[in-house]
Formats: sequence, C-alpha cells, structure tokens
Amino acid sequence: MLSVACLSGGMDSAVLTAIAAVEGVPDLPAALHVNYGQRTEARELRAFHQICDRFGITRRLVTDLSFFRAIGGSSLTDHNLVVPEGPTKDSAIPSTYVPFRNGVILSLAAAWAESIGARRLYIGAVQTDRTGYPDCRREFLKSMETSINLGTRADTSLELRAPLVAMTKADIVRRGVELNVPFELTWSCYSHEDVACGKCESCRLRLEAFAEAGFPDPIPYRNR
Amino acid sequence: MLSVACLSGGMDSAVLTAIAAVEGVPDLPAALHVNYGQRTEARELRAFHQICDRFGITRRLVTDLSFFRAIGGSSLTDHNLVVPEGPTKDSAIPSTYVPFRNGVILSLAAAWAESIGARRLYIGAVQTDRTGYPDCRREFLKSMETSINLGTRADTSLELRAPLVAMTKADIVRRGVELNVPFELTWSCYSHEDVACGKCESCRLRLEAFAEAGFPDPIPYRNR
Repeated sequence: MLSVACLSGGMDSAVLTAIAAVEGVPDLPAALHVNYGQRTEARELRAFHQICDRFGITRRLVTDLSFFRAIGGSSLTDHNLVVPEGPTKDSAIPSTYVPFRNGVILSLAAAWAESIGARRLYIGAVQTDRTGYPDCRREFLKSMETSINLGTRADTSLELRAPLVAMTKADIVRRGVELNVPFELTWSCYSHEDVACGKCESCRLRLEAFAEAGFPDPIPYRNR
Repeated sequence: MLSVACLSGGMDSAVLTAIAAVEGVPDLPAALHVNYGQRTEARELRAFHQICDRFGITRRLVTDLSFFRAIGGSSLTDHNLVVPEGPTKDSAIPSTYVPFRNGVILSLAAAWAESIGARRLYIGAVQTDRTGYPDCRREFLKSMETSINLGTRADTSLELRAPLVAMTKADIVRRGVELNVPFELTWSCYSHEDVACGKCESCRLRLEAFAEAGFPDPIPYRNR
C-alpha cells in the first residue's frame, strides 16, 4: 500500500521509514523531506538521500520552506539564537520549538499523498520525548487526520500513522535494530554538521536512548 | 486585536482583509501571501502589495512554495494542463483544484500567527462557490481550527474566521462595496496576467457576482 513517510534524516524518522516499508509491502513509501531552514539542513538532506538509497526508495520529494526562517522565533532556524545544551525542564517548551512545524509538514504530506494516490501518512512524532512540543501529541495528530480527510477529495482517504508516538527513545532504537535501520547514516545533532556535538537536546536524547537500549551509537561525537 | 489574513490578491481575499481590518481595530491584520506556483502569481503578488498599501498594512509575509508545482496535478500549477473555460458541473471538482491548498496555507498562517502573537486567522474560503473544493467547506475549517489549537503552545489561542464561507459571490461584492474595497486592484483571472480573460471559472464567477450585485467590475476584460 502506497504511503508518504516524513523523513528528516534523524534516527526517529529513519526507524519510521523502515516501519512504513514493512507495513506497506510490496510498496515502498514515498519519502518527503522538508528543508525549513534549520541549521543542519545540508547534513540532514544528505542523511535523507542516503537512507532512501539504502531502503531503495526512489520516490522522493525535497521541498524548501524558507518560511520558517522568515518567521523566526526558534533557535533551530534563527541563527542569532543559541541552541541550548543540557536538559530542558519538564513540561517546558524549549527554544528549539518551531511553531506548528508538524502541522505544516503534515499538510504538505497530505497534499502530496492526495496527488499520488497514497493511502497512509507516516510521521515520526514522539510524544514521550520530554520536549513538550505540542505538535507531537497524539490528540493533535488525531485531529489533524480528521482535518486532512475533511479537506481533501471525497475519494481520498488518508490514515495518519505515528507508530513512534508512545515509544521511548530506547524502544525506538531497539525497533530500529530489529529492522536493520542504518543508524550510521542518520543525523540528529541540532547544532553541527560535521561531527555531532553530543551536547544539544537532540544529541543528548539520542545518546541516552542508545545507552538505555544497550547498543552502541555508530556515529562519532565531538565531546566524548 | 492582531490577526493574520490570508491575502491572495483576488476579490474574495481583498474583502476578507477589509473585514479583518474592521474587526481588529485598532490593529491592522498581518497579511500572508503564498506563491504556490500558480500561473498568474506575478500579477497576484502585485495585487497583494497594492491592496496592502491601500489598507496601510505593513506587516506582510510572502512565501514561496514551489512544492505545489513539484507535486503537479492541478491546471493552476501545471502548465501542461489547460485552465478550463465555462462552467464546471455541479458537485464536480474542477482541474483547478490544488490538493489541500487551504490546509497548507492555514498551517503556514497558524505558524506565523503563533510566532507574532496573533489571536485570529482569516481565510477567504467560500463554500457557496459551486467549485466543490473540499478545503473550502465549513466542516474542514472548523476541524482545522481545532487541529491548530491542539498543535500549538498552550498559551496560543487562535480563532479561525472565514466570514465569507456562507456568502454568495454577489454578497461578497456588496460587502466589499460597503467597505470601500479597492476592487480595481484585485486580480482573479486564472489564466492571464495582463488583461483578465473573462472566460475561466474565476473570471466567470466574478463577472456574475458583480452583475448580480448591480455594480460594475472596475477591471477590464479581454473577451467582452
């Protein structure tokens, strides 16, 4: 069954894409990558293509959305802000939050899915990240699925799947290992493109996840 | 009260922006224009800026979304397809439908609104157009409002207003005349940028609306 998978190039979306591939047999998912002006976009894009190559995904769409840099307000897209190191307080929304990013990405994915006749959308939102991003919550995803089906053709029926939403990061690593996800090709660091910093929230969560799952993280880190 | 108005540059969105201005006093709306690769974009963008100038709107955001041209499938964005002339059958979705366009535009508007602290979103969707676009229906807009509020910060509260949704095109003209909307600056034609064709669905609905409202349409037409 044809699907669209949102693939940033990070570890979560790589595992997500592997799940979409397994669930869609014999069809490979179509892969959507959104460049929203994040600091590490060039590195993420390389990861996107390398992961697609590994999975044999040929249907790829890379879209530039300078919009998010234009509106600013996030340390991921505003280079005048600093990407924080160390943990964010529970329940606080960190400065890396990009306003309604998953809403925009899902809208684009839905539009593409409708135009190619896909039946499922996959997004790697993780509610259990302690990051507090509102657009990663299950209630939001459920509502967005409804909105997408109301706002597309009557004969378009799209199921929104977020198989990672209730998983811990360690569970995601374990599932990825089971599915032979090429973690060495993924990129998670928010602040650097050459060697991962090991300090930003994204690196920190990733390192904790591999440690907890009991597998070595195959990528090198600057500060370790 | 600060709002974000989606302003394409057509007659509906110009009336919408006037309504947003009246309802937001003393704040003028911020105006969002999305270039989605439609044929007449350059002309629409000129209309956008001229309408903003007339209303005194300084907070403007123009965003390029080449995405819609990349996914294709609509005669508005795919120059290999022909923009149809004459009426579309009732309840059919015409070839000018752009997949989930209003979903994408509203997601962008919501992201911008959250980042600037706006409290309302205005979109000029018209359900009574006989065009059958699913993303102009009230049920969709209501659901999207819920999705937007679930997917943004807890202290972000956005009301989605679509004041034209139940109006006829003639009602929209009448309301625009009351509000001194500069219809001479607006652009509706789907197929031409110099002189409006008078034949495409958008020109046809506009001409009928002015005729029914009993006001002259101030722009010239090619085929009249």
